[in-house]
Amino acid sequence: MKNYVIGIDIGGTYIKSGIIKYDGTLLATDKMATPVDNGVGEVVHTISCLIDSLIKQTGIKRKEVIGVGIGSAGAVDRVRGEVCFAANLGIQKVPLADLVEEKTGFRVKIANDANCACVGEWKFGNGKAYSDLILVTLGTGVGGGIIIGNRLFEGNCGAGGEIGHMLLNKGGRQCSCGRKGCLEAYASATALVQITLEEMKKDKFTKLWNVLDDSKMITPQVIFEMAKTDKLAKKIVDDYIHNLGEGLVDLCNIFRPQAIIIGGGMSAQGENLIAPLRDYIANHIFAKETTPPVDVLQAKLGNDAGVIGAASLFVS
Amino acid sequence: MKNYVIGIDIGGTYIKSGIIKYDGTLLATDKMATPVDNGVGEVVHTISCLIDSLIKQTGIKRKEVIGVGIGSAGAVDRVRGEVCFAANLGIQKVPLADLVEEKTGFRVKIANDANCACVGEWKFGNGKAYSDLILVTLGTGVGGGIIIGNRLFEGNCGAGGEIGHMLLNKGGRQCSCGRKGCLEAYASATALVQITLEEMKKDKFTKLWNVLDDSKMITPQVIFEMAKTDKLAKKIVDDYIHNLGEGLVDLCNIFRPQAIIIGGGMSAQGENLIAPLRDYIANHIFAKETTPPVDVLQAKLGNDAGVIGAASLFVS
Repeated sequence: MKNYVIGIDIGGTYIKSGIIKYDGTLLATDKMATPVDNGVGEVVHTISCLIDSLIKQTGIKRKEVIGVGIGSAGAVDRVRGEVCFAANLGIQKVPLADLVEEKTGFRVKIANDANCACVGEWKFGNGKAYSDLILVTLGTGVGGGIIIGNRLFEGNCGAGGEIGHMLLNKGGRQCSCGRKGCLEAYASATALVQITLEEMKKDKFTKLWNVLDDSKMITPQVIFEMAKTDKLAKKIVDDYIHNLGEGLVDLCNIFRPQAIIIGGGMSAQGENLIAPLRDYIANHIFAKETTPPVDVLQAKLGNDAGVIGAASLFVS
Repeated sequence: MKNYVIGIDIGGTYIKSGIIKYDGTLLATDKMATPVDNGVGEVVHTISCLIDSLIKQTGIKRKEVIGVGIGSAGAVDRVRGEVCFAANLGIQKVPLADLVEEKTGFRVKIANDANCACVGEWKFGNGKAYSDLILVTLGTGVGGGIIIGNRLFEGNCGAGGEIGHMLLNKGGRQCSCGRKGCLEAYASATALVQITLEEMKKDKFTKLWNVLDDSKMITPQVIFEMAKTDKLAKKIVDDYIHNLGEGLVDLCNIFRPQAIIIGGGMSAQGENLIAPLRDYIANHIFAKETTPPVDVLQAKLGNDAGVIGAASLFVS
């Protein structure tokens, strides 16, 4: 009997994989580095290797697998099973669902990675209580998934929901999409690290240099930790929250969801990130206390949301 | 037999009224200045006068009227019939539908004014061909109506769809909503005139001064006309289109509708406004030609869209 679904989450840095039972229980996971700019063949090969590894790990039989759900970065046409455009992967107009089906023999469905994570969080995570929510994923880029009236909203041919590519600051920081000043250019984990490295060059006294002296990397975790004692790190974190807060207020003014859920790598900062965002939204949302509030929560599924969400494309 | 519906459109400058046949035909209209900051009693009184005037004008009997649809500026809770917050009118938490019902004896429905205009344009105007569209109204403020899958999308308690209050330029021009740098602060007709007056003070040689010397007002029409021969006016119009274009690209990236329809007073500029916006969107939209294009059209119902749309709250 078919009881298992495989989920593949193609991000800008890793391709993650997992196998779940139909009730959402995650049985095993794996990951490999995303082969960027090596063409789609390498991406398909990596996915195939990850599937083989999961089956080997768990001993589940191939005939017990319902299908393979894939979440891919970029604009994805769910109906055609096509990755229309993924700047981070350097591919466009690729019929990825068909290619993986041919290579592996499994049924394949595909959707945008952040949309998958959103469905996962909504079906199996902290979004269960809501009919209208937005998941904002803060990782290599800024993605989003939007649930309206208990349905995933994707826009025409799945090309909507690109909430990382709303303007925050016209003419501001260069974004991967070609425009300048998008939310992603300020609020992704990558942007936070990049901005920190830029600011460090202007301030030779910041304790952030000690981190590099200790041969450690500048990571969001390090920046948030240093913000407790270092002035520059604090300013960087405050600016980050202010910028992200403004972007989230925009989403509230447009969608007025019941909840915004913060996912992606950045969400590991927990209440250090969520609490100030919650305050920012309450204080800056359109019409404030005269209109319904918006709950702000950390994603529950954490790093597994993408994989579980991708798999849930096969869960009705 | 009940065959007629009255529509009331409460804008920041005028309250407009109209009576339509059930098929959308507009039979008569009227308008009065919006009583701003005089309390809700004056608003209700003005609406009552306008209804009496329409009935007198047309000779239609009161018992032939199905009801009165009201479109109001600001955040409106359609289910409760309440204006939650309308900065331009200076009112909040007002049960306007009940108040007008009590005063006039008619059944009353209420929704946000731009949402009404959107429904009107979608049912009876240039939006007929689309299941997914956004109407952007450029008048005293910037409003929006969003149709997703053949339904009006309003957000939780009708508090979404505030597309004028998306950020364009963080920390930029002061907006009526309290934030700085919203789209409305750059793209409303009011903002265009305000920006022009500010720029004129810095340039005593611009021909725009001749307009004021001739005792004429600076209006969007005048600014667009002068842009053909005056350098400053041309720069102001170019900047206006660039700013509005960026805001519309944001909407495309989030919603990827089939069409964006431009309404409100500014839409009288026709192709002088629409054509450059169409180009701007095509050139800056996320993932460009790899994803479905967005049609950009002028609203058909023009000044009557609000009134017809409000009335259409009673048209199924």
